Amino acid sequence: MTKVAIVYHSGYGHTAKLAEAIAEGVTRGGAEVSLLKADDLTKPDEGPWDVLQEADAIIFGSPTYMGTATAVFQQFAEASSKIWFNQLWKDKLAAGFTISASASGDKAETLSRLATLASQHSMLWITPAVAKGYHAKGDDYDSAENRNGFYLGVGAFAPSDSAPEEFPHEPELETGRKLGERVAKAATRWMKGA
Amino acid sequence: MTKVAIVYHSGYGHTAKLAEAIAEGVTRGGAEVSLLKADDLTKPDEGPWDVLQEADAIIFGSPTYMGTATAVFQQFAEASSKIWFNQLWKDKLAAGFTISASASGDKAETLSRLATLASQHSMLWITPAVAKGYHAKGDDYDSAENRNGFYLGVGAFAPSDSAPEEFPHEPELETGRKLGERVAKAATRWMKGA
Amino acid sequence: MTKVAIVYHSGYGHTAKLAEAIAEGVTRGGAEVSLLKADDLTKPDEGPWDVLQEADAIIFGSPTYMGTATAVFQQFAEASSKIWFNQLWKDKLAAGFTISASASGDKAETLSRLATLASQHSMLWITPAVAKGYHAKGDDYDSAENRNGFYLGVGAFAPSDSAPEEFPHEPELETGRKLGERVAKAATRWMKGA
Amino acid sequence: MTKVAIVYHSGYGHTAKLAEAIAEGVTRGGAEVSLLKADDLTKPDEGPWDVLQEADAIIFGSPTYMGTATAVFQQFAEASSKIWFNQLWKDKLAAGFTISASASGDKAETLSRLATLASQHSMLWITPAVAKGYHAKGDDYDSAENRNGFYLGVGAFAPSDSAPEEFPHEPELETGRKLGERVAKAATRWMKGA
Repeated sequence: MTKVAIVYHSGYGHTAKLAEAIAEGVTRGGAEVSLLKADDLTKPDEGPWDVLQEADAIIFGSPTYMGTATAVFQQFAEASSKIWFNQLWKDKLAAGFTISASASGDKAETLSRLATLASQHSMLWITPAVAKGYHAKGDDYDSAENRNGFYLGVGAFAPSDSAPEEFPHEPELETGRKLGERVAKAATRWMKGA
Repeated sequence: MTKVAIVYHSGYGHTAKLAEAIAEGVTRGGAEVSLLKADDLTKPDEGPWDVLQEADAIIFGSPTYMGTATAVFQQFAEASSKIWFNQLWKDKLAAGFTISASASGDKAETLSRLATLASQHSMLWITPAVAKGYHAKGDDYDSAENRNGFYLGVGAFAPSDSAPEEFPHEPELETGRKLGERVAKAATRWMKGA
Repeated sequence: MTKVAIVYHSGYGHTAKLAEAIAEGVTRGGAEVSLLKADDLTKPDEGPWDVLQEADAIIFGSPTYMGTATAVFQQFAEASSKIWFNQLWKDKLAAGFTISASASGDKAETLSRLATLASQHSMLWITPAVAKGYHAKGDDYDSAENRNGFYLGVGAFAPSDSAPEEFPHEPELETGRKLGERVAKAATRWMKGA
Repeated sequence: MTKVAIVYHSGYGHTAKLAEAIAEGVTRGGAEVSLLKADDLTKPDEGPWDVLQEADAIIFGSPTYMGTATAVFQQFAEASSKIWFNQLWKDKLAAGFTISASASGDKAETLSRLATLASQHSMLWITPAVAKGYHAKGDDYDSAENRNGFYLGVGAFAPSDSAPEEFPHEPELETGRKLGERVAKAATRWMKGA
């Protein structure tokens, strides 16, 4: 069975909620999913690195803090440098997601940073393919999937004073599920073609 | 009197409308403003290049088409390569703005591209300083300035089926005016300090 | 047979030379290759768009001029907007390459721009996977593959006064061949798994 | 007297060495300089934050680890979020520098990340203005200033197995000094014009 791992950091629970939605999407796409906290993977020799090694695809997630992925996520990225040196994740699939307290909020920088990490690991980058979002006058900003119009990954919104039960709201969680489903199916296809 | 030039490309008129708002802001900030079309500056030896050379600050603007500044804007950027070679814009101030038909829509890439252009020209990059935008539950997305939360420059929204009379809407035009005002005052201060 | 198309713009011939090396790599990887000039694809209704539609993978290439892909390449990108609107390139593979007259020269911005374009088209991004380049004291800068250390795509160097017969030099051409070979094999695997 | 602070993280000493060269440049430019370690500024309520508040300009520095600024640097950035909320660094000058073990090595991503941080803080971004680097056949890669061709900030090279006594080598240290000198003079001019 295809294996997809999600590694994320969540400061206040919103990113965890989006990670869970993405995990539901992975299941919907027919793959086995592991949800891992970046907090448990900040050292090269501790934590569930074997789960990542066995995965066919890894989805990276982090809030955007002061313009990029968090320090905890970066500790994880740095802890992966031996893996990078030996290119042990080469040819795995990768994807990414982030959240901030505004529509843009420099989330694009975070998604770019996640794609860069994947490219250093020689992984293949999978995009959400939820194309248009809110872009015409008749569209409803509150109900549109991918309402903020991110393409490299999922970029969701959570107000700075909201609880994870409130945000990301349902359409953005569904955008996350679609990313999970797409990664699961792409990984299955990719493994089947090997 | 401090001189600020705005060079922009506009496909359907929305970016022109934002450019005009920024020009109003420059006037409000006490500087003289010139509005130039990138379309007239696509060749190194034709067009009002002297206006740019005499300006204390240049504000770059373009819609985001397929993920970055337009081909017309890029023709202008390429036509500036001799100026770059001789570093004739060194120490001028610079700033940027863009529009697309979604909240993000990869506008961050365009703003980054504009800042890169300015950095190649050894200019100083001025940010809008309209800080928070729509970021808490009580905020109103439709009336917030900088509602989409861009920091490197102004990132506005115009639905794909809207007329320039409709979008960018007033709060984003005011965000533009604030950028113009800020650049005018910064350029005056910068020239005064010389 | 797997089909790979390369769409590139070349100002002085260096990018064309790298495109040809990548094409050799595609052949080496067992796929059929088409070399297309962006110059012939600047309008939505003219040029060999059907070749792109039939391709399993598209490799984008452009020199870096003033910090990003060229105006001609951007004309091609803009001409692809109807295809984007209908998501006709969804699930194709994509990759990218660029050249400038310095080691960095803001080529990273161009590669990021190419990956953004691919992500808007919901394509899968394939990286060169030529990992380390010139990074230790004993390494030789002149003979190292990927000597400048780009990961998202191939970033090659051609001095501003060099002829295409001289630059990119052989190790960077071989880096290009490896990208072509990798894309060919990945596309074959991807199509086989469908 | 104009005050310039340099905040940096250094893993193995190479970035510290570049920071010291930049500090020399600040002195050469006639300003007072403070060298601060990001390690001492990872919490909002501990460390020499007052030095930063009193500075007219802040220069940010970090190695590039796995594609962006380090976790320690990011801890500092996150610790500055209250300052951001109150926009207490608004109108200060900013600049940046980074090092990695290859010519590019995704340093552009780090410099972009530093400029984004500055733009969130509504600071003005100062570029090194060491324009061309190694770009023509007659140029010598080993002796050229800005040899790798970065424009947004200083991007230096240190082989993975080198000692800080060896790398960055002298021309890149001089590039750093020029950045420091330029920031010092720009800050003096900016304060004088107030």
